[in-house]
Amino acid sequence: MRLLLKNCDILASSDGGFEYIKNGFLGIDGDTVDYVGATPPKTPYDSQRDMTGTLVMPGLINAHTHSAMTLLRGVGSDLPLQSWLFDKVFPVEDRLTPELIRAGTELAILEMLSTGTVSFSDMYMAPEEAVKAVLESGMKANISRPVQCFDPSEPVEENFRVRESLELFDKYHNAGNGRVRIDFCVHAEYTCTAPVVKYYSGLVRGRGGNMHLHMSETKSEHDECVKKYGVTPAAWFTDLGAFDVPAFAAHCVWVTDEDLELMKAHNVSAVHCPSSNMKLGSGFAPVQKMLDMGLNVALGTDGAASNNNLNMFEELHLASIIHNGLANDPTLMRPSDTVKMATVNGARLQGRDDTGEVRVGKKADLIALDLTAPHMRPNLDPLALIAYSAQGSDVVMTMVDGCILYDRGRFLTLDAERIYRDAARAVAQLYA
Amino acid sequence: MRLLLKNCDILASSDGGFEYIKNGFLGIDGDTVDYVGATPPKTPYDSQRDMTGTLVMPGLINAHTHSAMTLLRGVGSDLPLQSWLFDKVFPVEDRLTPELIRAGTELAILEMLSTGTVSFSDMYMAPEEAVKAVLESGMKANISRPVQCFDPSEPVEENFRVRESLELFDKYHNAGNGRVRIDFCVHAEYTCTAPVVKYYSGLVRGRGGNMHLHMSETKSEHDECVKKYGVTPAAWFTDLGAFDVPAFAAHCVWVTDEDLELMKAHNVSAVHCPSSNMKLGSGFAPVQKMLDMGLNVALGTDGAASNNNLNMFEELHLASIIHNGLANDPTLMRPSDTVKMATVNGARLQGRDDTGEVRVGKKADLIALDLTAPHMRPNLDPLALIAYSAQGSDVVMTMVDGCILYDRGRFLTLDAERIYRDAARAVAQLYA
Repeated sequence: MRLLLKNCDILASSDGGFEYIKNGFLGIDGDTVDYVGATPPKTPYDSQRDMTGTLVMPGLINAHTHSAMTLLRGVGSDLPLQSWLFDKVFPVEDRLTPELIRAGTELAILEMLSTGTVSFSDMYMAPEEAVKAVLESGMKANISRPVQCFDPSEPVEENFRVRESLELFDKYHNAGNGRVRIDFCVHAEYTCTAPVVKYYSGLVRGRGGNMHLHMSETKSEHDECVKKYGVTPAAWFTDLGAFDVPAFAAHCVWVTDEDLELMKAHNVSAVHCPSSNMKLGSGFAPVQKMLDMGLNVALGTDGAASNNNLNMFEELHLASIIHNGLANDPTLMRPSDTVKMATVNGARLQGRDDTGEVRVGKKADLIALDLTAPHMRPNLDPLALIAYSAQGSDVVMTMVDGCILYDRGRFLTLDAERIYRDAARAVAQLYA
Repeated sequence: MRLLLKNCDILASSDGGFEYIKNGFLGIDGDTVDYVGATPPKTPYDSQRDMTGTLVMPGLINAHTHSAMTLLRGVGSDLPLQSWLFDKVFPVEDRLTPELIRAGTELAILEMLSTGTVSFSDMYMAPEEAVKAVLESGMKANISRPVQCFDPSEPVEENFRVRESLELFDKYHNAGNGRVRIDFCVHAEYTCTAPVVKYYSGLVRGRGGNMHLHMSETKSEHDECVKKYGVTPAAWFTDLGAFDVPAFAAHCVWVTDEDLELMKAHNVSAVHCPSSNMKLGSGFAPVQKMLDMGLNVALGTDGAASNNNLNMFEELHLASIIHNGLANDPTLMRPSDTVKMATVNGARLQGRDDTGEVRVGKKADLIALDLTAPHMRPNLDPLALIAYSAQGSDVVMTMVDGCILYDRGRFLTLDAERIYRDAARAVAQLYA
């Protein structure tokens, strides 16, 4: 089945940069882009779709989230961090069941598809529910079961989360023709013990998954680690072998220059989560420095409890402006960099070298933005338009592996009304 | 004509705070709210409108913009400030004609109406075009002709901008049944001379308009003023009488504690423009301190050239989170404050004491948000939902003085297609 998208502007990739094609043509053969050009292709396609007034670009990749936490959207806003977590979030999470987690994840998938996300990196409990929801939806995700350890006297072999993480990998890695990938995950330095991290890191080495973790999100987390172990979280993870597999670390707000060097040496990607870092008062990750060093930096929403949504266009916008404000320098964080952070850098971090760009031979993981709304006129600088002006709601089509999953308000693979009912029931149960 | 909005959630005001009414009723008599309640009113209404699934709240007030600059959206992004202004923005502005300014303003009005703004404070050339566009659209605006002076040898009486400003006031103040108000305006300290500010301030005193100005936007502007005059811009304006009328100052990023005391003593409102201040690298206005001192603080988008849109929900969101990030304190900038900044504080600054709140006796300047989208579920904390989760695109109805101007994608008073054609022609002419 070959589909031709025609009469659309196209943000294509070429030689490390972008090429903007006006009124172009994009051909798809099955799940793969097979033509990109300003003129019609010479070979026939089975079907054609007129995309007049839209801009086709790579789908966004949400490189760090806890999708089921949509059910906690708005819980305990504006409290100090510890009180928010211990008095508000954790008591609700204690009441979560796999069924509720499924409901929250499905609600998250609707939100992500409707705002242009094609793939996400998820870290949460009962991850099999996320696997099933993703497989059913048609989108892509890297899913992980976070390993934690709250009882230092427990033998490392008995940590049930380590066992669940490995079982999940064996059962589902590359499921759905590779749409689902399973990652490994140490939740964070402050929620794990050194022996468990070392044991787990040894077990996962060479299996083929990535390591997903939280790192140096808050100053107190970073400083407490230095006080406790004499090393930073980045050095602690390095010493224990957590970076001996391809790894990506969410937040990295308080990383030192030496930490960045360690990350560079071990090829650790950073996930910048500006909404969450601002809202929770965590601070500003040194993103421009990371980019200047050649680190791979992607973008994530974090969970809806600390964001409070899963809208990657907001993260792209924030990443593009807040660092200018902090450094008093309008020349930082160019859209050509931040758009890559929201797309191809996330793909690289997920181990998906076949997506994140509009290019012949890459997967057709695409979105189309409506260019006809008032705020999208005029289009004098397409990358600036995407980074500074565009909204998640401008997404009128989301396509994964060549299949249209979202089309102008309609979800083609999911029963949105059923998901809304399930989510409402879950919320009623959680906050009864 | 009496209209009843029924079955909507309502963000009503009561005693300095908010009251959230689930599935309520809001009655409108002509241009004024005459009923707000959880139960149906006892008196009959001429017509009823089922608002199931929406949240009715005060319309947003964009307290600082240059609306015609939509035509410069995306011009010269990511350049150093001086180069952006002098090499990119000013040469385009030199080519603007009243006709082009009209086209840009109308495009801005479409964008503002569709994202929930009911009133804006505009500062630009050829202000009569903005007046006409606003009158035609049905929305509200405070419009001003900025006074500047680039030739210190010119006698103050001969400054044509001063003359235009006063003529505009005499001709249009309170036009359209008060929908249009005319403000006075000194563009900024760095674009005016002391004699002109003093002369103009003397002329406008007691006439009934407000003074709109830029103040301490960038560090260099603030520091240069201190170097040149020995006083800060706030003290300079005070000394010259610019604060002897009700005044509001945009940006106020680099104001000192003494400046804030001066503003407090002269009842000067501040307009916080977080997108523009971040994007241009200007910095963070001390907003929490202003609020703590009891200053009136409103929100503005600034022009689309430095934002790059006119979406007040973005400003509300940014104002709610960036200060937490800077201060490493998640308890700052509560939605109960920032929602007021986006609504009633802006109304107060515009001299419109009859709007900015949902309350019996206030003008029916209202918007309705769609609560059914995935990112608006669940609604556990309505103010947090509005400040952190909502998007400009969630606005499904914008009403001014009881008239619906925007209804689920349709503009009821304006010919959007004609405005898009005019804007496209204007852009073609400007960048030929």
